[in-house]
Amino acid sequence: MGGGGNSRYGQTTFKRSKSHFTDRITADGRDGWPVAAGRYRLVASRACPWASRALVSRRLLGLEDALSLGLADPIQDDRSWRFTLDPDGRDPVLGIRFLGEAYDRRESDYPGGVSVPAIVDVPSGKLVTNDYQQLTLDLATEWRSLHRDGAPDLYPYALRDEIDSVMADVYEDVNNGVYRAGFATDQEEYETACAGVFRRLELLTERLARQRYLVGDTITEADIRLFTTLVRFDAVYHGHFKCNRWKLAENPVLWAYARDLYQTPGFGDTVDFDHIKRHYYQVHTGINPTRIVPLGPDPSGWLTPHHRQELGGRPFGEGTPPGPVPAGEAVAAPGRP
Amino acid sequence: MGGGGNSRYGQTTFKRSKSHFTDRITADGRDGWPVAAGRYRLVASRACPWASRALVSRRLLGLEDALSLGLADPIQDDRSWRFTLDPDGRDPVLGIRFLGEAYDRRESDYPGGVSVPAIVDVPSGKLVTNDYQQLTLDLATEWRSLHRDGAPDLYPYALRDEIDSVMADVYEDVNNGVYRAGFATDQEEYETACAGVFRRLELLTERLARQRYLVGDTITEADIRLFTTLVRFDAVYHGHFKCNRWKLAENPVLWAYARDLYQTPGFGDTVDFDHIKRHYYQVHTGINPTRIVPLGPDPSGWLTPHHRQELGGRPFGEGTPPGPVPAGEAVAAPGRP
Repeated sequence: MGGGGNSRYGQTTFKRSKSHFTDRITADGRDGWPVAAGRYRLVASRACPWASRALVSRRLLGLEDALSLGLADPIQDDRSWRFTLDPDGRDPVLGIRFLGEAYDRRESDYPGGVSVPAIVDVPSGKLVTNDYQQLTLDLATEWRSLHRDGAPDLYPYALRDEIDSVMADVYEDVNNGVYRAGFATDQEEYETACAGVFRRLELLTERLARQRYLVGDTITEADIRLFTTLVRFDAVYHGHFKCNRWKLAENPVLWAYARDLYQTPGFGDTVDFDHIKRHYYQVHTGINPTRIVPLGPDPSGWLTPHHRQELGGRPFGEGTPPGPVPAGEAVAAPGRP
Repeated sequence: MGGGGNSRYGQTTFKRSKSHFTDRITADGRDGWPVAAGRYRLVASRACPWASRALVSRRLLGLEDALSLGLADPIQDDRSWRFTLDPDGRDPVLGIRFLGEAYDRRESDYPGGVSVPAIVDVPSGKLVTNDYQQLTLDLATEWRSLHRDGAPDLYPYALRDEIDSVMADVYEDVNNGVYRAGFATDQEEYETACAGVFRRLELLTERLARQRYLVGDTITEADIRLFTTLVRFDAVYHGHFKCNRWKLAENPVLWAYARDLYQTPGFGDTVDFDHIKRHYYQVHTGINPTRIVPLGPDPSGWLTPHHRQELGGRPFGEGTPPGPVPAGEAVAAPGRP
């Protein structure tokens, strides 16, 4: 997510924009966008928790060959997400310098923000969807014909009511709650949001003290969505967003849960703490005018033993872990050999 | 310390102002200011680490009756430290609204900053000293005739070289290092300061793993000066000043050392986390433009067992702990019964 720098944060109460482009890429192509190998490009930023959901799903499901990946610079400028990490500052497949160009091809003079994750139709160069809530559910269900052998079922039919319910609470209080705390412009608004973050985390702690994953005994979409917030918690939400009642590393249950996922292939290998920290601390000048990026926290703890396997559970259910990270997509992760 | 809000922090590299008024109150009165019971008033803020040294010393030495205490509001305005906590906004003994009035009586049109701790001569209303480095040493040595029975020797003659050496390192890298990190205006300057803070804390950790106090086996001035920074570490320096490699609560040795002192009469009973947090987060708008004060961290851990007595040591040497906090000076401390 993330529009043009701080522009969306000038309002009294932080409100997350709804995705404007909600076409779905489906097996039957009913919106005009049929699932097809090689046709679409996922544009993401490793800084962004909403985009990072898609990075994890794509790895777990083995969609790397079918759905290519363009990575935006963690620092947006006034034209928003840009491809300054690529040679000549252009995405090598789409040939564009700014993700906004794909938005413009889809709808001229679109007045809204440019956000990641986004899926672009490569032949036409048009944005298909920036619907961060639906996008990963479709990867898990509609893209099934292109999944790798042994891909897990991240959104199992029988558990959807429970998964949806858990995700709704996690979204309101945690995924988005940290943003409401961080972008609050008055004390009361901040306190309400921050208290809500920790109240929900305490409830999740009780749940995860008893079971290895949020729903059932395997990894689901609900775990992906909690993970992408937890992995950013001590690095940026604790200090920059003032969610500082305690660090994740001070909560034994959630810290072990987050490390378990981080050490599971497909999770930690998508995480770039350098992108995460530079994005938050350098883009949000309204809350960090100096743009200085903190040296801490020490990330080496992410690789320490978590002992969560003692709770049982089958991470991939009947499936198997994903293979190695494709060439060219590896992240230089602190503390990882 | 702390001049008019952020005014002193507009320069490229943060430099702490030298105290301008360095007269000493001595037993022999050689600067014209002889030690005398009831003649002087200490003006402090519980927010300020430099002033808090004097709050601790005064308690440990039992100088509460001899040297009265005026407390400034933790939030300075453009006239700096003010007595808005008192009825009618005036210090009840000095009769002034702003500490700066005592500075003006001493030297008209004094152009420098107004800082705490300050000692004011009550009969004339003139500032005597704002020399935060010398002030507590004089309380420990020159004011000896007014110490309580059983007062500890906070600056024992035989250990002064070692105490001075430890305090010099702690000042440069820790007491002032956190400010250089927090007020840095570029990344390199910040990183140098922040790395220096943690390098010194690691060295102090080695020292304090073996012995209960910094120098010798009793509390000295060196412990007071390290304590006033450590007690602020997780509350403000970790987030607000970006000294976030780890929290104090994550370092078992320093956290136990700090709790040991906090739970020693004369230390924790001078600490006001509310004043500390509001001061830093609300005054430094250059690094916290929203002026929002974080809810965390949870302070209840300060009262948990520290087990440092297993290292031996005699906190007060041949002396005894101070008595209860005088009426009217008690702090409402979170987590304290």
